[in-house]
Amino acid sequence: MHKVDLNCDMGESFGAYKLGRDEEILDYVTSANIACGFHAGDPATIRKTVQMAMEKNVGIGVHPGLQDLVGFGRRNMQISPQESYDLVVYQIGAIYAFAKSEGGKIQHVKPHGALYNMAAKSPSLSEAIAEAVYKVDPELILFGLAGGELVKAGQKIGLHTANEVFADRTYQQDGSLTPRTQPHALITNKETSIQQVIRMVKEGKVESLQGIDVPIQADTICIHGDGENALEFAKYITTSLKQAGIQITKINEMLK
Amino acid sequence: MHKVDLNCDMGESFGAYKLGRDEEILDYVTSANIACGFHAGDPATIRKTVQMAMEKNVGIGVHPGLQDLVGFGRRNMQISPQESYDLVVYQIGAIYAFAKSEGGKIQHVKPHGALYNMAAKSPSLSEAIAEAVYKVDPELILFGLAGGELVKAGQKIGLHTANEVFADRTYQQDGSLTPRTQPHALITNKETSIQQVIRMVKEGKVESLQGIDVPIQADTICIHGDGENALEFAKYITTSLKQAGIQITKINEMLK
Amino acid sequence: MHKVDLNCDMGESFGAYKLGRDEEILDYVTSANIACGFHAGDPATIRKTVQMAMEKNVGIGVHPGLQDLVGFGRRNMQISPQESYDLVVYQIGAIYAFAKSEGGKIQHVKPHGALYNMAAKSPSLSEAIAEAVYKVDPELILFGLAGGELVKAGQKIGLHTANEVFADRTYQQDGSLTPRTQPHALITNKETSIQQVIRMVKEGKVESLQGIDVPIQADTICIHGDGENALEFAKYITTSLKQAGIQITKINEMLK
Amino acid sequence: MHKVDLNCDMGESFGAYKLGRDEEILDYVTSANIACGFHAGDPATIRKTVQMAMEKNVGIGVHPGLQDLVGFGRRNMQISPQESYDLVVYQIGAIYAFAKSEGGKIQHVKPHGALYNMAAKSPSLSEAIAEAVYKVDPELILFGLAGGELVKAGQKIGLHTANEVFADRTYQQDGSLTPRTQPHALITNKETSIQQVIRMVKEGKVESLQGIDVPIQADTICIHGDGENALEFAKYITTSLKQAGIQITKINEMLK
Repeated sequence: MHKVDLNCDMGESFGAYKLGRDEEILDYVTSANIACGFHAGDPATIRKTVQMAMEKNVGIGVHPGLQDLVGFGRRNMQISPQESYDLVVYQIGAIYAFAKSEGGKIQHVKPHGALYNMAAKSPSLSEAIAEAVYKVDPELILFGLAGGELVKAGQKIGLHTANEVFADRTYQQDGSLTPRTQPHALITNKETSIQQVIRMVKEGKVESLQGIDVPIQADTICIHGDGENALEFAKYITTSLKQAGIQITKINEMLK
Repeated sequence: MHKVDLNCDMGESFGAYKLGRDEEILDYVTSANIACGFHAGDPATIRKTVQMAMEKNVGIGVHPGLQDLVGFGRRNMQISPQESYDLVVYQIGAIYAFAKSEGGKIQHVKPHGALYNMAAKSPSLSEAIAEAVYKVDPELILFGLAGGELVKAGQKIGLHTANEVFADRTYQQDGSLTPRTQPHALITNKETSIQQVIRMVKEGKVESLQGIDVPIQADTICIHGDGENALEFAKYITTSLKQAGIQITKINEMLK
Repeated sequence: MHKVDLNCDMGESFGAYKLGRDEEILDYVTSANIACGFHAGDPATIRKTVQMAMEKNVGIGVHPGLQDLVGFGRRNMQISPQESYDLVVYQIGAIYAFAKSEGGKIQHVKPHGALYNMAAKSPSLSEAIAEAVYKVDPELILFGLAGGELVKAGQKIGLHTANEVFADRTYQQDGSLTPRTQPHALITNKETSIQQVIRMVKEGKVESLQGIDVPIQADTICIHGDGENALEFAKYITTSLKQAGIQITKINEMLK
Repeated sequence: MHKVDLNCDMGESFGAYKLGRDEEILDYVTSANIACGFHAGDPATIRKTVQMAMEKNVGIGVHPGLQDLVGFGRRNMQISPQESYDLVVYQIGAIYAFAKSEGGKIQHVKPHGALYNMAAKSPSLSEAIAEAVYKVDPELILFGLAGGELVKAGQKIGLHTANEVFADRTYQQDGSLTPRTQPHALITNKETSIQQVIRMVKEGKVESLQGIDVPIQADTICIHGDGENALEFAKYITTSLKQAGIQITKINEMLK
């Protein structure tokens, strides 16, 4: 039977600022990527998000980002591998401590935004990030863009890895995502995006924007937690995957 | 035989800003209180400080502070017990992750600056801080002002605690430190400060500014790591304590 | 004819975080207190808020706060008068520069949150804030709690001042606001709050929680810009004041 | 007679962290580039630096940087022209307000670190920065890398501009600085660096690393304010320039 994990970024509120419909989205996903206070999130938000994830038996993930709160960690920064290593170790600690204090444990690490995108293309950044994860806890699962450098670096150092795919993004014939700055980067039709995801999970293939099929491994699917239709889409993808005979399974159970 | 731990705040550099003579001071102290990035410190500094402490077999401590970088965590802020709990859990995580990734472990927690001072007088803040420490790891040792609320809260919840005394500060007849805003708060004569410390360790007493002896427990002595004479004083106190027959001992060995 | 200014805090969004219904609220108020990046706000938000205020002919105000983004500037901090002076000068500059670059000018300064509350009771903080405002531009109008220390300090140094009253808060017999931590601090009945405001403007009196009438000067009324009913209340108070024969007038026109 | 301005970055201390020998360096330079709180600096430091610059009749400059305190504004960030515009307007305001409150005025704007370097090569960033400066005050002088895009953008919009040269850096045959990542980027011999500067001022030429003479306009020379030999070098260059018959002149007097 085909299986796939559903993940969502959350814990992105900050002080008086509220973002995302975390509590409701947690009913649909199996892995929660929790912001760590660098690009979003704060100690109180982390605590509450960890508590909610544990109540709903959702895997607790670390979602480390660049130290760019006003830019929400979405702006590329020229950081060294050593800097990315240090950022990731620090941020794993933040989520670890709240999970530990609540009697839980962390399951995975997924870099955020610009850090995720830069890592997907950079072997040296990816190796530093993978080393950071491995050295804090070799049992952690590293999430990265399907087929990207981060997944490769994780496998190389001996981590379990999860290839992440996107429902609402188109792919290039080299397996990379179509950059958002280019036309047709986003799939706006709900049905099309679901069919793409189902095919990735069942057949291990995606049709690139150039019309050529590209092999792709889909271990986990990224769901968005904010925006008006976030909740509706979460429900829809969950139902559609089940109807297609795909079992939504927490990543640490899939990998065992 | 009398024993005492020597602790020092360190890892207080931040980016391009360098502070303290950590590497040299580590040759004299047995416990290092490492800043966690809120009032001082950054991920790279934490990593380097943890590495140095491990090389020199100095106990790795968490030194959580208020989120007030420009004020160096020295300005009182009206935070709730819940906020202090969250701050402390988060910051323990930061040091934990670097210690873990370097193959070490954390030994103690000592709040910094205004958080330390507010906790010493506030049962509710102290209980929240002690709970944070206990829930992350009940084996951690909690440092607080000798006889203050933090030590009491730590004992109450079941933590090992360390009563901290100061060589260069005078005491009031209720056992509290003379506030820095009052005259004679600081002991500037080196010999006087050493004699005060030796008496606290050996006799469990300190002569208050009012001339009355006050009982005090001295488990650990605070040494300053910056300032021109920091290193010189560290050498001097170390030598003086040994000559007085006091063994400088890491706190986790004292408590066993 | 009775006149009063209506002011509202705005420009409190930060990066990806959106707060408040600034554009709509600007249709009802005459003075905009724009966050400066310390407790809320960022350069892009300031620019957009200044542009909107100018389009709608609303007075541009500086809304300086404590440097406590995660606490939204609402937590008291023990800052010195010199620190409050420096904070205020800096933050006036931020709004000044955007007003200047858009061809406009700043009208007033109203401290935010904890800084506002601390100043209302502290002559030394208030004098430092008033001096900061005066030294940057003696034509600026200083907003403070009606009858509080900030207004007094402003008058003393030679600034135009505006006594601010609150529609939704009860008053004590010494003219201070009932602290939020006490019962009956908030007026939840819309009609009661409007009647209180109308009486303050027309008669210069407010009935304290103790049942005794207290003299109060109402130059400007604070309207809240977030919350579900913000817009509805703004409409309601505007209509009610007009019906009561009170003219809503920009503060700099009232003072001339 | 040949004239040149000497400028130095300063006001880079932050809270408890002290950096640079500003007070002493101010005796040698004619233009002070004052950090604005984004990459370095804080309100108190700005005030003190403005006061010192005014006492010593040194031109007050705005030194805006990227919002990257831990990286000291030295790491490239992928910001949009609009973002750079907003950053610069905001930071001009900060220095403006302190200069105004002290009875002085600002003279120039020189972007810092990564913002400076990115602008030197990017017409779109440079145009946004130049527009920010122009819209706040068209009398401000814009400093940029000699022959770089920022100077061009400043001239295009109608600002006075200053071409900046470096004593301790080598040049490429296209007039750009040799990147620090390449060999021979720095000139470590003091005499060589002085001769390079004198020739740039007097002849308008510099010998590139490739051995070919390149035309260059030297309106202002950058002096470093930290490092062990900063003060010594400042004295040395001042003396050497005078001996070579070059008059060290504040940039706003040169341009009149």
